Amino acid sequence: MSNCNTCPSAATCSSKDAGTCTIEFNPNNNIKKVIAVMSGKGGVGKSTVSVLIAKKLREKGYKVGILDADITGPSIPRLLGIKDKRATGNEEFIFPVETDDGIKAMSLNFLMEDENQPVIWRGPIITGVVQQFWNEVLWGDLDYLIIDMPPGTGDVALTIMQSIPITGIIMVSVPQDLVSMIVAKAINMARKMNINVLGVIENMSYIVCPDCGKKIKLFKGDTEKFIKDLGVELLGEIPMNEDMNNLELYNENKDNISKIFEPIINKILEKVNG
Amino acid sequence: MSNCNTCPSAATCSSKDAGTCTIEFNPNNNIKKVIAVMSGKGGVGKSTVSVLIAKKLREKGYKVGILDADITGPSIPRLLGIKDKRATGNEEFIFPVETDDGIKAMSLNFLMEDENQPVIWRGPIITGVVQQFWNEVLWGDLDYLIIDMPPGTGDVALTIMQSIPITGIIMVSVPQDLVSMIVAKAINMARKMNINVLGVIENMSYIVCPDCGKKIKLFKGDTEKFIKDLGVELLGEIPMNEDMNNLELYNENKDNISKIFEPIINKILEKVNG
Repeated sequence: MSNCNTCPSAATCSSKDAGTCTIEFNPNNNIKKVIAVMSGKGGVGKSTVSVLIAKKLREKGYKVGILDADITGPSIPRLLGIKDKRATGNEEFIFPVETDDGIKAMSLNFLMEDENQPVIWRGPIITGVVQQFWNEVLWGDLDYLIIDMPPGTGDVALTIMQSIPITGIIMVSVPQDLVSMIVAKAINMARKMNINVLGVIENMSYIVCPDCGKKIKLFKGDTEKFIKDLGVELLGEIPMNEDMNNLELYNENKDNISKIFEPIINKILEKVNG
Repeated sequence: MSNCNTCPSAATCSSKDAGTCTIEFNPNNNIKKVIAVMSGKGGVGKSTVSVLIAKKLREKGYKVGILDADITGPSIPRLLGIKDKRATGNEEFIFPVETDDGIKAMSLNFLMEDENQPVIWRGPIITGVVQQFWNEVLWGDLDYLIIDMPPGTGDVALTIMQSIPITGIIMVSVPQDLVSMIVAKAINMARKMNINVLGVIENMSYIVCPDCGKKIKLFKGDTEKFIKDLGVELLGEIPMNEDMNNLELYNENKDNISKIFEPIINKILEKVNG
């Protein structure tokens, strides 16, 4: 059932008047804003950024959920430190798994007996699962649902952009020209689908040598040129360090992480609500 | 047309006697061995490893091709330093692009006017393109065809495993438990499909501080346990450094790269031919 009154994309939506909207809403869910985290390229830290956004929003008192749309390579359960939990359901709904700090999460790995086993499925089945994660999971009341997108600009990305009302999308990149090229593809895809690109978060920007303290640039990409060419905003830079690599230990490293991520989350909130 | 006599998988194939083989061969191609490079996880260096294997085999005098099966995130043209070339074709064939050192390559980006534009295609179209890259590209005589697989265990991976005769598959990982879990999925998928897993190459194992020379471990994954649990061989470790990050400058860094990759390629050749 499409419902423009409660739709997070109503403000920018063009299909409302045309009557072409195909988004389905579960009447038991009330999700105010949907933020998608994408890259196009794999392994750049989409899931890490998704979890950081969720944690920070939760700390600010918001009701938060994470939908892990990377069906064949799900990372969210481990990063949230709840990899051994399993989702339950009844005839009507799937119940999301909840972290100790109250973030609701849904991932394919919550439905697998053994997380090492692959799902060898064709596209239509995978996209069907993502739609179920949106529609049949009992998210309840959420201020923010974060969607961790799969790599690539294929089936699943397309389905999410068509069938979930995304308030805005954040692109994750690393400062390497090869990666920027593929992130550019993702930005162009989002724009073709009329989705608001909130900006780019640059991950793995540098590491700090634990012995001599030198800030080592890992890659030599021209971030400034990339940002300018694509006409997007740089929301912030994240270093590659132990704190960021081990989000399972988030609580122990909270202060260090906050120094880096607090300005980024504030920019995101401004963009999404401003 | 299936042809067991010239098939690179004939030795280990179980569908020969059962008559269930669905692999098609282009009679104008004669490809002796097919090595697939996979990971399951994105961004771990599959394309880098694919190009390193191709370069080293070429240096040893073999006829080599690379098929970039990552249709929505193609990296091969840039890594080979031929991103501005375009593929041509006639009514019958697509002609691969050739590097100065004589490696034949086919990638979706060779067919795009602008490499920044995404292909927003559903699964069946993407898998169709990969099959065309195998069947309709005029590879001619090749000793080795290297296939750079896309991330994930979805459609494209499945199609390649079903419709291309893979001699052996190499898994690329990084020493991070989250990644190992997803690489385990890929290994289990390959085994389910009766594909010979040659071993694992560990990428981003460490970096060396340019100031003080300290070897910095970037991640804290337990590689030994992962290798043992999965019953696979570690073919070698690759550091994260400028030489490896800028394969476009391969010729300038050849000696440094050789020190690291020569033992790895020799192990691969032993596995594939032994």
